[in-house]
Amino acid sequence: MGGVKEEAMVVESKEWYLSAYAPQGVPTSDHLKLRTVTLPLTLDSVPDQHVALQLLWISVDPYLRTRMSGLDDGLCSPQFSINQVIEAFGIGRVIRSKDRVAGFAAWVGIVVLGNPKPGSNVFVSAAAGGVGMYAGQLAKFKGCRVVGSTGSDEKVKLLKEEFGYDDAFNYHKEADLDAALNKYFPSGIDIYLENVGGSMLEAVLNHVNKGARIPLCGMISQYNKIWTEREGVRNLLNIIGKEVRMEGFLIGSYLDRFEDFAKEMEGYIKEGKIHFKHNIYHGIESFPESLASLFSSSNAGKVCIQVAP
Amino acid sequence: MGGVKEEAMVVESKEWYLSAYAPQGVPTSDHLKLRTVTLPLTLDSVPDQHVALQLLWISVDPYLRTRMSGLDDGLCSPQFSINQVIEAFGIGRVIRSKDRVAGFAAWVGIVVLGNPKPGSNVFVSAAAGGVGMYAGQLAKFKGCRVVGSTGSDEKVKLLKEEFGYDDAFNYHKEADLDAALNKYFPSGIDIYLENVGGSMLEAVLNHVNKGARIPLCGMISQYNKIWTEREGVRNLLNIIGKEVRMEGFLIGSYLDRFEDFAKEMEGYIKEGKIHFKHNIYHGIESFPESLASLFSSSNAGKVCIQVAP
Repeated sequence: MGGVKEEAMVVESKEWYLSAYAPQGVPTSDHLKLRTVTLPLTLDSVPDQHVALQLLWISVDPYLRTRMSGLDDGLCSPQFSINQVIEAFGIGRVIRSKDRVAGFAAWVGIVVLGNPKPGSNVFVSAAAGGVGMYAGQLAKFKGCRVVGSTGSDEKVKLLKEEFGYDDAFNYHKEADLDAALNKYFPSGIDIYLENVGGSMLEAVLNHVNKGARIPLCGMISQYNKIWTEREGVRNLLNIIGKEVRMEGFLIGSYLDRFEDFAKEMEGYIKEGKIHFKHNIYHGIESFPESLASLFSSSNAGKVCIQVAP
Repeated sequence: MGGVKEEAMVVESKEWYLSAYAPQGVPTSDHLKLRTVTLPLTLDSVPDQHVALQLLWISVDPYLRTRMSGLDDGLCSPQFSINQVIEAFGIGRVIRSKDRVAGFAAWVGIVVLGNPKPGSNVFVSAAAGGVGMYAGQLAKFKGCRVVGSTGSDEKVKLLKEEFGYDDAFNYHKEADLDAALNKYFPSGIDIYLENVGGSMLEAVLNHVNKGARIPLCGMISQYNKIWTEREGVRNLLNIIGKEVRMEGFLIGSYLDRFEDFAKEMEGYIKEGKIHFKHNIYHGIESFPESLASLFSSSNAGKVCIQVAP
């Protein structure tokens, strides 16, 4: 990702690149380096069917981290090469690429795979994150009861007061997840939108109802670990007894449904129904910090970087 | 389960009952006891919409063991009560109840949930068991390539020579499951019919293709352990990256498809296409031994008890 500064037919662009893989932990300045490159911008230098654009906004999402491990861990796109510029979704001045990541992922998870019915009991983890904040609202529009888990009391408040969650809890304070789910889901869970993985998934599998759906959107608790050190989920047998459908998804496979999503969301937006929060970082230099924020409890809402005004 | 000996209007019936729960290990004579009861058989003694039947055959299946743990582990039907007679599927003299267990489970897993296509790469664990022996044949009829895992060289031979598997391996001899799956599935796995669980599932998740289907039929490697001591599966993240659909099923929920199954199987049977093997025990006294055989590598085929000629 880079920020371009115009200068005749040659421009200077700052870009973050991967200097070393980070198999474990949050990537730091040991792994991510900023460099300035010059780009020719004559017409001949732009390949066919490509455009040059000035980046204004960058979307910072958890999957980016999984591309920096140097390990083929099975999630998402291939690993970044060493010295390769970090690619991300964004908004530019020349071509507007819609920010599809967060709202669309929530829609695929809840509406397409979750099959929500009025009265369904829906649980969303990482509920105040970029996906979770939309997921709860979408489930509410379908008549469900929605509870979210998140990492701070401020975010519990945000979920209940801004994002329409019926209830929410701070998993740091209610660390006995089994007890928490007993309390918040006395009638069990019908849909669980998985953004966390590990012990949260294990706890949920002890509270699922017959025929529950578990769309797997992400497992942010596991990204900073190599796979053999990830938390094992021991109660998958419950998936049989409760006839659960657990399904992983990447939004790239649902682009044929993007029109349906856009139409539905447009309706909600026009009615003033959708609430959201962006956690905005300023300047391309803030990329490592913004990435690390995804793995801290302080982050709420969609993380993005504003590169140019 | 019991075997009835007729004697005027009162009959003597031998029945196995649960005297103590077995949270771990294979249930033994410490947990299962045989008793003889007398049953009145006057017309008045038979409740409305019930029949009395003389049991001829008993189907011995892994799920029975999960009902003897005394723990609510989420699989299948409720726990047997202490002193309760063990219930099982069977064939009786008065009313023939079709033996739905094994062939139907294989059909639901492979045909309904597996969505097999010509050329799909199908892996079946516990392939020489009551479900596996039908699963491989069904997948072959759909044009798939099928490989099975099993616990002895004799059964590897059986799979390849009798049950139509393209290939098979003995997981005791090829204990590096990752290497084995690399070898037998150079193009990856499209459908995995899960009968084993634990490390086998973990290995499979490192070899699934995009959009793979994993119908969960059983997890026999895990039944003799309490859930917190079961093997954790650490690479569920791959379910997202590969957009896998993992779905548990109980045949009781698919009874509306039983007609379709019966029709399809009837066709295969008439054409002489279906091969099977029954591992027959004799006499109601053999129940604990037949149950234990399910958890040993020596068993091949569907286990049943012949109670009466």
